[in-house]
Amino acid sequence: MSTSRAGTPRPGPTTRARVLAVSDGTARERRDDLATEEPLEIRLSSSRHVGSATPRPRTVDGSAPAEAHRTVAITMRTPGNDFELAAGFLYGEGIITPGDLSSIAYCTDEDLPREARYNTVTVRLRQGRLPELPTLDRHFMTSSACGVCGSASLEALRDRCAPLPVPAGNGAVNGGAPDGAAGVSPEVLYGLPDRLRAAQSVFGKTGGLHAAGLFTAAGDLVAVREDVGRHNAVDKLVGWALMTDRLPLRESVLLVSGRSSYEIAQKALAAGIPVVCSVSAPSSLAVDLAREFGMTLVGFLRDERFNVYSAPERIAAV
Amino acid sequence: MSTSRAGTPRPGPTTRARVLAVSDGTARERRDDLATEEPLEIRLSSSRHVGSATPRPRTVDGSAPAEAHRTVAITMRTPGNDFELAAGFLYGEGIITPGDLSSIAYCTDEDLPREARYNTVTVRLRQGRLPELPTLDRHFMTSSACGVCGSASLEALRDRCAPLPVPAGNGAVNGGAPDGAAGVSPEVLYGLPDRLRAAQSVFGKTGGLHAAGLFTAAGDLVAVREDVGRHNAVDKLVGWALMTDRLPLRESVLLVSGRSSYEIAQKALAAGIPVVCSVSAPSSLAVDLAREFGMTLVGFLRDERFNVYSAPERIAAV
Repeated sequence: MSTSRAGTPRPGPTTRARVLAVSDGTARERRDDLATEEPLEIRLSSSRHVGSATPRPRTVDGSAPAEAHRTVAITMRTPGNDFELAAGFLYGEGIITPGDLSSIAYCTDEDLPREARYNTVTVRLRQGRLPELPTLDRHFMTSSACGVCGSASLEALRDRCAPLPVPAGNGAVNGGAPDGAAGVSPEVLYGLPDRLRAAQSVFGKTGGLHAAGLFTAAGDLVAVREDVGRHNAVDKLVGWALMTDRLPLRESVLLVSGRSSYEIAQKALAAGIPVVCSVSAPSSLAVDLAREFGMTLVGFLRDERFNVYSAPERIAAV
Repeated sequence: MSTSRAGTPRPGPTTRARVLAVSDGTARERRDDLATEEPLEIRLSSSRHVGSATPRPRTVDGSAPAEAHRTVAITMRTPGNDFELAAGFLYGEGIITPGDLSSIAYCTDEDLPREARYNTVTVRLRQGRLPELPTLDRHFMTSSACGVCGSASLEALRDRCAPLPVPAGNGAVNGGAPDGAAGVSPEVLYGLPDRLRAAQSVFGKTGGLHAAGLFTAAGDLVAVREDVGRHNAVDKLVGWALMTDRLPLRESVLLVSGRSSYEIAQKALAAGIPVVCSVSAPSSLAVDLAREFGMTLVGFLRDERFNVYSAPERIAAV
């Protein structure tokens, strides 16, 4: 793997374009910034030859052989924080644990076309063997052996994700009295959408990006990530936490700019995030997951209102 | 394949849930409708034994053997129009053509758990051999053999999609004079978002669904489909057109409720849709695709304004 980057064009998060802006039936040409969308190939590689007693094999001409790797996923994403995206995706899908990670690098092989070099990330693992996995695409489902359905999806999650520790009290949204053990106040939640929007640098330019923000229980912004894909923004946040040794994110509140789907909730659960909020609606399966694993799921968080779908104990005074 | 549906619970597009609604610091419990999210497994099967001179083989006990099939994709979706979703997905990915289709059915096998029966759709092909395909997930990319990048993605599309016929004139957004050959007026476009929203029955209940609407050049709504996944809503529309023998959709205008990404544009291109509009921003790669294939791409269509990113010749008087 070459690390030379000379002369390789590296895609940025925005792309300039000429556009015809029409209003009142008249058109004028102007320049616009678009959110960049480019594929990212995530590769896993093993470092079984690194530091091993067995010398690394050489090819007949004496050169080092190409490192063994496999493509795990290809996703459309907005360039930027690509290492975090790769690490967060692999962690969220249960493919790696933080201790597995040896290094992450762009695959700037000379035999790769220039345009592709910053669209390929190789995650190298410490252990010798690559996990046995099919080539996945974004929305990896564990198995369809017994037929697919929502409850089978939750069942598969149970094998690798523990329930979130719930404060004393009743986890069901059933009118139970608040127990005072919660850490997030409604006032803090009301303020999160504005804080997220203020931190979205690329959205401000393009109007075309999803965001995911990580906050403390006091409402302070810890990190924000943007992407054309909602799931990617969450993967980038989780990858950032993994690479900076912050997992699990037990004290954190996640806010996503759109809806919360099963996949968003699943990624948050894998990262140990106890409170997940979205500006728009949750799906039925996101709510099922949240109830099953004791996650506080908040939806329609805007205009100083919100709905709580599960585990309201973590929200003070409701 | 059994067609018995007795006693099998069939998931609907919405799911009732209890929710705690919080505003002004007070909470009250109420019932809410959530957009249902359930996985759908799309299977391909071959009818090589149907109508063939060779009798269909039987197992030793004389029963018919399980039909050969393979899982092509698993996607999270909102139940409803599942056959359209399966057909539209397979068509949009270039896996089937309209003539390939023999039948589409839920896989209500008795050995499938009850919950899974309406989450598995089998598309039976006329020809004898199933296409050689890996098991795909939603965001299928043709190949990463030469490295992934946006231009490689467009290159791969060129093999199976012809450019859209552009009216006389210049396809670039470069201030070229309007040629009057276009079919859609700005006034018609201004009105589409309200028409789409008015037709979204499930969104009205849940606030949580993406929509895709197909309109005539005069602005009349032809069909609308909703889903938790943006791409699914487009797949359902394309599948509807395929199953009702309307492809290619040469005279149509597509409006999607969110952004337009590469995948949305690619699915529209495969269906021959010449004008694609979104309420929010397009991505850079959607614009690249539209320019490459002569598609009229409109973004930020709201509040009686819009931007045109490519092929403005199809819009009258701009």
